[in-house]
Amino acid sequence: MKIEGNHYHTIWLKADDPNVVQVIDQRLLPHKMEVHNMTTPEEAASAIKDMVVRGAPLIGVTAAYGLYLACLHDASDESLHTAARLLKATRPTAVNLAWAVDTVMQELLGSTLNNRVERALNMAHKIKADDIEICRNIGAHGLQIIRDLYKKNQRTINILTHCNAGWLATVDWGTATSPIYQAVEEGIPIHVWVDETRPRNQGASLTAYELLQQGVPHTLIVDNAGGHLMQHGMVDMVIVGTDRTTAQGDVANKIGTYLKALAAKDNEVPFYVALPSSTIDWDLKDGVKEIPIEQRSGEEVTSIWGWTGEKIQKVQLSPEGTPAANYGFDVTPARLVTGLITERGICSASTEGLIGLFPEKAASNG
Amino acid sequence: MKIEGNHYHTIWLKADDPNVVQVIDQRLLPHKMEVHNMTTPEEAASAIKDMVVRGAPLIGVTAAYGLYLACLHDASDESLHTAARLLKATRPTAVNLAWAVDTVMQELLGSTLNNRVERALNMAHKIKADDIEICRNIGAHGLQIIRDLYKKNQRTINILTHCNAGWLATVDWGTATSPIYQAVEEGIPIHVWVDETRPRNQGASLTAYELLQQGVPHTLIVDNAGGHLMQHGMVDMVIVGTDRTTAQGDVANKIGTYLKALAAKDNEVPFYVALPSSTIDWDLKDGVKEIPIEQRSGEEVTSIWGWTGEKIQKVQLSPEGTPAANYGFDVTPARLVTGLITERGICSASTEGLIGLFPEKAASNG
Repeated sequence: MKIEGNHYHTIWLKADDPNVVQVIDQRLLPHKMEVHNMTTPEEAASAIKDMVVRGAPLIGVTAAYGLYLACLHDASDESLHTAARLLKATRPTAVNLAWAVDTVMQELLGSTLNNRVERALNMAHKIKADDIEICRNIGAHGLQIIRDLYKKNQRTINILTHCNAGWLATVDWGTATSPIYQAVEEGIPIHVWVDETRPRNQGASLTAYELLQQGVPHTLIVDNAGGHLMQHGMVDMVIVGTDRTTAQGDVANKIGTYLKALAAKDNEVPFYVALPSSTIDWDLKDGVKEIPIEQRSGEEVTSIWGWTGEKIQKVQLSPEGTPAANYGFDVTPARLVTGLITERGICSASTEGLIGLFPEKAASNG
Repeated sequence: MKIEGNHYHTIWLKADDPNVVQVIDQRLLPHKMEVHNMTTPEEAASAIKDMVVRGAPLIGVTAAYGLYLACLHDASDESLHTAARLLKATRPTAVNLAWAVDTVMQELLGSTLNNRVERALNMAHKIKADDIEICRNIGAHGLQIIRDLYKKNQRTINILTHCNAGWLATVDWGTATSPIYQAVEEGIPIHVWVDETRPRNQGASLTAYELLQQGVPHTLIVDNAGGHLMQHGMVDMVIVGTDRTTAQGDVANKIGTYLKALAAKDNEVPFYVALPSSTIDWDLKDGVKEIPIEQRSGEEVTSIWGWTGEKIQKVQLSPEGTPAANYGFDVTPARLVTGLITERGICSASTEGLIGLFPEKAASNG
């Protein structure tokens, strides 16, 4: 997608030096756009760990390129095992990361030493290209819903989103944003309500930045505002992403998603979840009971980072001595979800719906 | 209530100089506790306008003392009319403010010139004392609910609150916090989940400060977190305040209240609203349709004030160029409210419930 009018992916090989992998330093967004260089697997691991890059798909792709960087320096089994361990340890709960590392490792360990650089690069490129294709397909399916809303209403379609399930979390297009970008490309008038998404403000900093750079009309709101907007007919649909989807269609997404789903239900606003099928955990059923919710540092609640006009600065919001709790995600039960938008199509948030799109999973879910 | 171990009201006459009215400068909380002096009606008006003081009850009391300060300088009808106009213009939508000014003015204009200083002071003291009494009574009634929960559960009672309906918004006790403070005084173990309440963060800055100073166990959370807590049985009841209550029991309160009410309903958590009966608008029925919602500056959403460790500083959160919408309140329909806690007792959020407690309003509401 676009930044300052130029097309970007979130990760690429440096134009004049294929020994350097480049990413956008997302820690500085939306205040500064800086490209971050990585030349070793250690630097790739640090980029993941320090959140230079974030978003499950992008983390996976970054790890794959990290193994390519390892091959450039020392393609021996020992070197690769060390790099793989290092990369996997950066975000131990990221399923996608482990999958990407294991996939590339299997290919490399089966290759001769002098083929490994080329193989690693091809694998990283393929994982990247596959992610773009998955996101593009999610968008193509989701676009149908927006097109229907536009045909029915014949006016600007107002879409609310929470957190950043945008292209900055993937390689291109994003998941929840992909239908939006494709609708805009088709000429459908769209306006996006952007939840700021406390405590880490991925909506205010990343989703708003994406939409601004892409020229999509949008308005930032606090997380408290969505219910009021829905009560007053100012939201035509909600689209969010998900970190983990159960086999019965419950979705774990950024904390606060459940509250928006409740408001959507109460006001008969369609509530859609966009997801690559890799986020489906076919072994889980009841998300509220079975999905463990990560607790993060309370400091993300008691203070916040922002731009003073001169620098990025942390300020404290609450009194010294007040403790804070910081739950990263909540679970939205399937009964509140209108539909799941996957790379294979749209289905109801139910075992039947998911099995209909992914019949090869029927046995394991029987 | 207490600050640094000493008992305070939010407004008082200076101990050694009755020509000075003192308030806590709430703009500096929770980072600094400073007392702000007022010696003229202009200074009282500025204190209201600049939000040195806030909260409908406290604003009304401050305006009453503003008229006392006017009398000290010039008790003529002309001087008082000028002061009254000035005070009423500070927050044109604050019903309580207009009521306090009109009440004191009526008394003063009916008095001889040389009685006016004393009369004004007595009126201000009375309005202040009445507010304390109303809040104390709200607390005594709400305490019953907490006592029953404690009898049933025999463990710490977890209460979630949104925004600041605390003593800092009144003179003492607060509205939503009054049952909490009285339960703590009775020895019932309480823990309060404090919604930070974006965009102005009255929860993180004022409610957390109050509870900390009073020694009430509490935990700060982002506004997104309450639904997750309720899904997991971590909230025994919700108590919030209200700015305006309709005759059928709909309540307009700080933006985001509606989302918490939905989550409470979905998880069978009792949801109570504490209110002085002065906030009931007997002419309104359907709050969602009839209550106009104030829109405030988008800058409150795009940036935030906090403590750098050295000073109170504003930082920008979103990209330059992203617009923001800022709705101040939302309306929680009566169907989501378990009960209304008033100074006369607790009733259902319904016309019948309210008329039962306020039978003198039956005619006007027929």
